[in-house]
Amino acid sequence: MVATPAIQDFYPDDFARCYGCGRLNEAGYQIKTRAAGEGTATDFVPDRHHTALPGYVYGGLIASLIDCHSTGSAAIFSMRGKGEEVGRVASPRFVTAHLEVDYLLPTPLEPLRIFGRLIEIGGRKVVVDSDLVSGERVTARGHAVLIEVAEGFAAH
Amino acid sequence: MVATPAIQDFYPDDFARCYGCGRLNEAGYQIKTRAAGEGTATDFVPDRHHTALPGYVYGGLIASLIDCHSTGSAAIFSMRGKGEEVGRVASPRFVTAHLEVDYLLPTPLEPLRIFGRLIEIGGRKVVVDSDLVSGERVTARGHAVLIEVAEGFAAH
Repeated sequence: MVATPAIQDFYPDDFARCYGCGRLNEAGYQIKTRAAGEGTATDFVPDRHHTALPGYVYGGLIASLIDCHSTGSAAIFSMRGKGEEVGRVASPRFVTAHLEVDYLLPTPLEPLRIFGRLIEIGGRKVVVDSDLVSGERVTARGHAVLIEVAEGFAAH
Repeated sequence: MVATPAIQDFYPDDFARCYGCGRLNEAGYQIKTRAAGEGTATDFVPDRHHTALPGYVYGGLIASLIDCHSTGSAAIFSMRGKGEEVGRVASPRFVTAHLEVDYLLPTPLEPLRIFGRLIEIGGRKVVVDSDLVSGERVTARGHAVLIEVAEGFAAH
């Protein structure tokens, strides 16, 4: 567990209802993404029913985790670029424009960690690459293009 | 609803426990993919808690649906290439090697349909592109590379 504040704990309430990472979505995964060195990290423990082929994690869950981990990472990198500290102000909220996942190896149904790194940042766009690690092996890689939600976004 | 048999209803039991598309995973989405004209189609009704930003479908769910829809589509295209009929023999089981999703527009939290089309097939590899349609708009596009599971795969 990385001991820095989780970016998702500081999303404005209207942006905190995501099934993957919303702290206010009681049915969801409630993932937490934190600064970790130069990059970011997200820990997750899959449930027994999150299987693909028996014994392995469902690829859709892996894509889901990389998705929310990437939006959270983009917010962390954006804040860092502005000299802001997570938890001191509301977290900016990014959404995914493009997501890629490479499934390199079957991912055992065990606790996993995703590491994120900043590839590109400019204006409202951030590009984040990720490694999903199970045990000591990278079993999946992610590449995501994230766009910051404009302030005037009309939440339904 | 397309009135052809669902490919997932004929996966061998050991391959029918996927959270996204396994008929034997009671906690999962149990999606059904069917032949539809030259391509394939998958219908899905998101739950109220499957939100991203309020009122819109969670991007991870969209990636999950496109993932399983693509493995099912690959099986349908593979069977078609061999002159086999869905439901007459066990469905072949594909897994995802590479998944891409382009989120073009926010997807309203309403019933949705995914259409698949065959891009490439050869040996154990199939490439499937998909359009996710909400109302009459394509709100996301998928691109997936699927690999057929070898017969000797050791299920845990």
